Amino acid sequence: MTDLRKTVERFWAAAEARDWSTFADTLAEDVVYTLPQTRERITGRERYVEFNREYPGDWHLRIERMVAEPGQVVSWVHFTVGLEEMYGISFFTGEDRITSISDFWPEPYEPPAGRDHLTERY
Amino acid sequence: MTDLRKTVERFWAAAEARDWSTFADTLAEDVVYTLPQTRERITGRERYVEFNREYPGDWHLRIERMVAEPGQVVSWVHFTVGLEEMYGISFFTGEDRITSISDFWPEPYEPPAGRDHLTERY
Repeated sequence: MTDLRKTVERFWAAAEARDWSTFADTLAEDVVYTLPQTRERITGRERYVEFNREYPGDWHLRIERMVAEPGQVVSWVHFTVGLEEMYGISFFTGEDRITSISDFWPEPYEPPAGRDHLTERY
Repeated sequence: MTDLRKTVERFWAAAEARDWSTFADTLAEDVVYTLPQTRERITGRERYVEFNREYPGDWHLRIERMVAEPGQVVSWVHFTVGLEEMYGISFFTGEDRITSISDFWPEPYEPPAGRDHLTERY
């Protein structure tokens, strides 16, 4: 039995390598993928692998941060698609295989007015 | 010495209660707060408490999920401001007190075309 952190590391390495059989092997057969921002859900390994395989763009990723405890992992992943950069934050549950993923894709936005006496831009 | 998970639970409970002295007590004096989406940064306990105290709206929160390991915690928090609902995802580091927070605020968006053969809406 592998711990979930190692499984999630393997999941991301396989995604970056487009190695879909290794990728599939990190997933439970009844894995559930949820996107709370669009309220989309994908159920089952086969569909979820297909979703990733079909995902458009020459995307590349690196893990920025990972936090793990038994049965739960969160990753903060930095993606580039050409010159575009974005973050993906993913909550995983599972044991040796991944049984659920909830994904967030926060977009850049302009700071609201009235707080620049407390903040600096970087 | 408290573990960081307990500190983060206290941090959110104090924010919800507007108990700014307990809130301040969860923070290291040189805490750094970062918002990657706006590229804003706030340095120091005093300014960061002020930022929260001044934050507009009658916001309320509940912790949806939390993942912790020694020195690192992530929380997925559900916020309501009147009828509006949103998520906040926060990466914390620290020991007994919080030394850094990186916050993400993902917004709802419409699903891109071409993947509804794999997804369902919920």
